[in-house]
Amino acid sequence: MNGAESLIRTLVAGEVETCFTNPGTSEIHIVAALDKIPEMRCVLGLFEGVVTGAADGYARMSEKPACTLLHLGPGLANGLANLHNASRAQVPIVNIVGQHATFHLGYDTPLVSDIEGIARPYSKWVRTSSAASEIGNDGVDAIVAARMAPGQIATLIVPADVAWSEGGTVVPLPDLPAPAMPATATIEGAATMLRSGMRTALLISGNALYGKGLATAGRLANATGAKLFAPYPITRLERGSGIAPVERIQYVREMGVEQLKEFRQLILVGASAPRAYFASPGKDSAFTSSECKVYTLAAPGEDYVGTLEALEAALSLHQAPLAGEKAGRPQLPAGEITLPGLAAAVGALLPENAIVVDESMTSGRGMMAATKGAPPHDWLGNTGGSIGIALPLAVGAAVASPDRRVLCLTADGSGMYTPQALWTMAREGLKITTVVFANHDYAVLKREFSYLGIGDPGRRALNMFEIGRPELDWVHLSKGMGVPAVRVTSLEGFSKALREGFESEGPSLIEVPL
Amino acid sequence: MNGAESLIRTLVAGEVETCFTNPGTSEIHIVAALDKIPEMRCVLGLFEGVVTGAADGYARMSEKPACTLLHLGPGLANGLANLHNASRAQVPIVNIVGQHATFHLGYDTPLVSDIEGIARPYSKWVRTSSAASEIGNDGVDAIVAARMAPGQIATLIVPADVAWSEGGTVVPLPDLPAPAMPATATIEGAATMLRSGMRTALLISGNALYGKGLATAGRLANATGAKLFAPYPITRLERGSGIAPVERIQYVREMGVEQLKEFRQLILVGASAPRAYFASPGKDSAFTSSECKVYTLAAPGEDYVGTLEALEAALSLHQAPLAGEKAGRPQLPAGEITLPGLAAAVGALLPENAIVVDESMTSGRGMMAATKGAPPHDWLGNTGGSIGIALPLAVGAAVASPDRRVLCLTADGSGMYTPQALWTMAREGLKITTVVFANHDYAVLKREFSYLGIGDPGRRALNMFEIGRPELDWVHLSKGMGVPAVRVTSLEGFSKALREGFESEGPSLIEVPL
Repeated sequence: MNGAESLIRTLVAGEVETCFTNPGTSEIHIVAALDKIPEMRCVLGLFEGVVTGAADGYARMSEKPACTLLHLGPGLANGLANLHNASRAQVPIVNIVGQHATFHLGYDTPLVSDIEGIARPYSKWVRTSSAASEIGNDGVDAIVAARMAPGQIATLIVPADVAWSEGGTVVPLPDLPAPAMPATATIEGAATMLRSGMRTALLISGNALYGKGLATAGRLANATGAKLFAPYPITRLERGSGIAPVERIQYVREMGVEQLKEFRQLILVGASAPRAYFASPGKDSAFTSSECKVYTLAAPGEDYVGTLEALEAALSLHQAPLAGEKAGRPQLPAGEITLPGLAAAVGALLPENAIVVDESMTSGRGMMAATKGAPPHDWLGNTGGSIGIALPLAVGAAVASPDRRVLCLTADGSGMYTPQALWTMAREGLKITTVVFANHDYAVLKREFSYLGIGDPGRRALNMFEIGRPELDWVHLSKGMGVPAVRVTSLEGFSKALREGFESEGPSLIEVPL
Repeated sequence: MNGAESLIRTLVAGEVETCFTNPGTSEIHIVAALDKIPEMRCVLGLFEGVVTGAADGYARMSEKPACTLLHLGPGLANGLANLHNASRAQVPIVNIVGQHATFHLGYDTPLVSDIEGIARPYSKWVRTSSAASEIGNDGVDAIVAARMAPGQIATLIVPADVAWSEGGTVVPLPDLPAPAMPATATIEGAATMLRSGMRTALLISGNALYGKGLATAGRLANATGAKLFAPYPITRLERGSGIAPVERIQYVREMGVEQLKEFRQLILVGASAPRAYFASPGKDSAFTSSECKVYTLAAPGEDYVGTLEALEAALSLHQAPLAGEKAGRPQLPAGEITLPGLAAAVGALLPENAIVVDESMTSGRGMMAATKGAPPHDWLGNTGGSIGIALPLAVGAAVASPDRRVLCLTADGSGMYTPQALWTMAREGLKITTVVFANHDYAVLKREFSYLGIGDPGRRALNMFEIGRPELDWVHLSKGMGVPAVRVTSLEGFSKALREGFESEGPSLIEVPL
């Protein structure tokens, strides 16, 4: 068995069963191995930002890593921005990056580059495999590194001669280490805070925001009067009718300060104290007031679910009921397109068990309020602030969850970083309904210009914020990549297109001019 | 004057007068500076791979750097793959990358990343500016580093508080150091080789491939009987009627070996001895035979033009005539679309002084032969093997050369890495005619699969090479980004569309189904 085959068989044995890829010549022997190992599903992207963003979406929904297969330094480089987002999402990903044959590197041919250097800024684990006999071990080490709680990016670089040489072995995945628990005193400290009667908030993240973790947090909050918050950058948040209500911290600092001002205690579970995304001259970036005690109950990578259960036990709250969100949808709106109307339509029509991928930027502000009483669903956000994640993330979420509907909310500015994802949606027949809010602006930047106190932007600055010359035509773009698309001009039209999208057997796209 | 303004004024004073950009919030103060400094032309790209590829194309044609303005780590990361190509092209580029305010970095907010680490693999010079009072000096140092012969990538990282603080000064550009000359003995050595009567080739690169350098090389070749070659990865090659003929080294090793087998001496001017792009099991990668003496006349970064002139003087050839390529165009072809027919149409119609950007991959093989007797033109290729360069490169070349026509030859696979460049072409009204060869394949990979001796690819491997499911519709894609487009079904149709493109006041696109 050659190195390539032993690597792929090791990955499959280690429950890495999906490969998002854009391969090249130096990865051909790995492609040949994939050719004969049908247990690994291969999903092609036409650009590597699609590949890495999809691996992120897959990991968020499946709680295990996919692998990517990327072509040398440039292929990895093209995937870096969405690896930035994935590193902030703290999800597991195993990158496989091809490298020239070891004896070829010294010739400094055109595609030679420092792949380890390119990998390092966003990978917690980087290794170049040294021999076919070692690559099985390398593959297992990569999986273990990726699955280190809460989830990390591991990058394994595979020289072509390591891939094509004989002597590979399939290595079984060892038991994964359980995430650490906080000290008992730390849990007791949080229990004391919750018993104090002071106004207390829990800011929770990772797997505390869905499933057993969120249910536990919800019971705790209900019994103690504490309020649950999620960070602004949401990896995955379960919400909707019957689910514990969680409020998302706002992006705009003044709004976040308002959200948190009543609280005198903030307990962190895997999160850090909220700060402004960007600094402003002369402004503090903290969201919490100086009177608020910030307490780390579980540090990143500790066992969030176990910690919440231990806290529940410390408070003797095992039988506490959960006060889930009340069911309720907005009425179907009518008339001219408005942002509240669009949000109401989504709230009225969102299918049960949907996955909402949200990079709607300034246009989607009302979406979470309008959907809070909709049937249970998951909400995935942009975790790292590198725009261009929504379409790829939707691909990965849909591949991981073939029985669920995906609603992808994006904008014309953000969508144009990775539009190639539409092609993969069409190719794989993914049940994704994409909504593009076309405001012809980098609207965030216009707002930040004023927010930073510079005054009004002039003509040349506006030229860097306004992207409506020429106007992007998303119906044409989408059809060009095989995804049926429609432009709507009324809320009725939007609702009709949304309903048809949710009933379709494949992807669709709705352009909403604003 | 704040740091941002002093930086932009320093760049303009240092002849950096074009800024390709996709800015974000952390660069807002730099945008505000650009707002009031009209001497810097700003060109917006919707994706950073367009921005960096355009800076490369600009540098190839203008022989001086443009700057880029990029948003934090992810913005730089999105531009890396075309910086890989630019680093191999050895062109000057000054990257300006925003950074959080220094006092904000410690909070590890979502967009924090190791920007220097991301920059380093492709930048020969990296610095983070420390104060508004220093950034003028930093800007000048960046320009000097970028213009270090033959041309380098310099990356200056600008924290937001450095940009917004007062105390900036405009620093004038010092005299640039002249590139070094080889030792006299080295030049004498080459002269001796050329006098020997042995079959000799000169492999030349950089600015020896156009203008005075190429004319000198052409006279030398004509007088001594040596043959001129260019590396397969062409940064810029002047060619056509009356220009010294230069043969490009082939991509396929066996063909390159055939090209070079008659030569017993190979003299290198800024180039390295040709090697196969990729290693193959059990195959040598060298193109030259063991009997061929390989001699470095000018090392990368030395004065190629001065070296050729010194060699001419050493051989007393100042009055030697130049035997330029004979004028001659193919006849306009007719009938069904074939690759030779497409090449003939380009050869028949290419306007004088055109710039051809060539990433036509497997579909464009006959293009150089068919255009060798066309009116003088420049040929720009993919220098680093990271595909997705053609459309951005065409943008930059057109911005640098507003009086020249640009013909951009790309393919459906390569074009999809950076299609967003079409939007910038439309926005700037650039005179670029893009031809997309749509073979619905990563055809190179199919060939390499067989070439590497693995046999025939199976269904799953083919799925990673064939991109025709769904078919990309480039007419839709192009119109979606504001560029008029047509699909042609005959050679007559292709010639008509090509002629109309060359006469148009703005960009156009021709999809050629293969």
